[in-house]
Amino acid sequence: MQGEFDLIATLAATLAKPGDPDEEWIGDDSAIVRPPQGWMLLAADTVVAGVHADLAYTSVDDLGWKAMAASVSDIAAMGGVPGHALVAVTAPPGSDIRLLYSGISAAAEEMSCPVVGGDLTNGPELTVTVAVTGSCPGRPVRRSGARPGDVIWVTGALGASAAGLRRLRSGEARYDAVREPASAVRAHARPTPRLLEGRAARLAGATAMIDVSDGLAADLGHIAERSGVGFKLEHVPVHPEATLEEAMAGGEDFALVFCAPPAADLDGEFAGINPPIMIGECVPDPDHRSLDGEALAVSSGWQHSF
Amino acid sequence: MQGEFDLIATLAATLAKPGDPDEEWIGDDSAIVRPPQGWMLLAADTVVAGVHADLAYTSVDDLGWKAMAASVSDIAAMGGVPGHALVAVTAPPGSDIRLLYSGISAAAEEMSCPVVGGDLTNGPELTVTVAVTGSCPGRPVRRSGARPGDVIWVTGALGASAAGLRRLRSGEARYDAVREPASAVRAHARPTPRLLEGRAARLAGATAMIDVSDGLAADLGHIAERSGVGFKLEHVPVHPEATLEEAMAGGEDFALVFCAPPAADLDGEFAGINPPIMIGECVPDPDHRSLDGEALAVSSGWQHSF
Repeated sequence: MQGEFDLIATLAATLAKPGDPDEEWIGDDSAIVRPPQGWMLLAADTVVAGVHADLAYTSVDDLGWKAMAASVSDIAAMGGVPGHALVAVTAPPGSDIRLLYSGISAAAEEMSCPVVGGDLTNGPELTVTVAVTGSCPGRPVRRSGARPGDVIWVTGALGASAAGLRRLRSGEARYDAVREPASAVRAHARPTPRLLEGRAARLAGATAMIDVSDGLAADLGHIAERSGVGFKLEHVPVHPEATLEEAMAGGEDFALVFCAPPAADLDGEFAGINPPIMIGECVPDPDHRSLDGEALAVSSGWQHSF
Repeated sequence: MQGEFDLIATLAATLAKPGDPDEEWIGDDSAIVRPPQGWMLLAADTVVAGVHADLAYTSVDDLGWKAMAASVSDIAAMGGVPGHALVAVTAPPGSDIRLLYSGISAAAEEMSCPVVGGDLTNGPELTVTVAVTGSCPGRPVRRSGARPGDVIWVTGALGASAAGLRRLRSGEARYDAVREPASAVRAHARPTPRLLEGRAARLAGATAMIDVSDGLAADLGHIAERSGVGFKLEHVPVHPEATLEEAMAGGEDFALVFCAPPAADLDGEFAGINPPIMIGECVPDPDHRSLDGEALAVSSGWQHSF
């Protein structure tokens, strides 16, 4: 057992330090940082063990990674750049907080989003809330700007995270497949926010964007609802290990789906990164939602209930 | 029972809206706000029902208020001004989330710190994490700047929150004493961050500052440790309903304790607000910690353990 202050000191020693001597990160009442330029973005997500992630199929460091990824993906979905993270952890005594922070720290480095503060408290279940700041030099891409005739794009094949979990549960895949970069298990354990793709989509003139966290049908539904358009999907790229249903309804892929006018110069902005895949178009009838000519049920995806 | 998206829409309708049409608060992947001027401050705190607050003696709306107050007080303790809040709530089905948000919303208005986003998830225990941004036009006041000879001040009598909880537990006080502005029960249920006092202390030239969340002895200990000084306290102002022990060791008062050179013009900066109370001075020997000539045990206050 270790007290809160000792443990915070231990953890702080493993986290990145500010390069600017006038900044102060962990160790005071608040962190002191330079404000972002342009627009500031703010987002927070919580991951609860046993609710968002089954610790039988997710290691504690990957739980920390996922919590960082969920929040940073919200910045990617606006076309923004991550700034700083605050990490609040609630955990029962005996939790492996150092392992949790090794995943958080790895994600912070990978996503260029250093942890500058947070909180550490006892509670009945391991719960990680990550709040992030971000910046956007130009206009952030909202959910509400899609117009009829806009082309719909995704940043890659879908369904990997859901397929990874299914394969772990069934015993078909082992957790050490997390080391294979393109495997479904890796996509489930260490999902990657699409920061470069989000920025490229914004610069190319995307009119609306969202990250696929509740499933393509539900998340594209949020764009449709906010923009007042319908959508006609012609094909959906499915991860090689996933089913079409996993691609349409599986959450936590963190792929981005965005809309852009047909004339948008995607090739130019996506030069050097994975090209997006065209999956359909926005239509004027807001009640039209179809895949390959078949109507899609309006689904809001999996929801928490209160 | 209500689904997450419906409930978020209901809650969003009760929260403040942006005055600036180019900002977007709740409803997209990230909130879009204008960045602060000067230095940016970032802090997060978590309140867990049954750990930080016993729901037998704290109503659910007051739990929401306390979570906001804890984070905003971290901004006050730097001499800063609150900006925006992200609120992440984890709750079991059947929790009164609307009541919780009525306290969060009241605090956000009182503390001029609007809620611009967050998360709402299921979990085993009601847990509220509030992350806040703040700004500081001048140099924020850290814990590390106190010098021998500096005078030590507090912004008001201490121990009220601990006394309020004791009186509720013993049945001496009823929860409706929360309506009496100066009562210990009110201080326990709806603690007030000292934003005006923190700003005045910064402008008057405070060298170090902290909010009293773990007890005066522990929190002044943090200043002493970070500044490399000791402290000699001559008297401590005790709330009329509190004991000296509650004043020294009771947490969550959110009074500010700060150090300032003897020549600092406190009267000028504190004109029109509650004047601070002198409680002692910083001394060169970092091992010296005394109250009225008696050595104080080095205490770090109550800690979570892992």
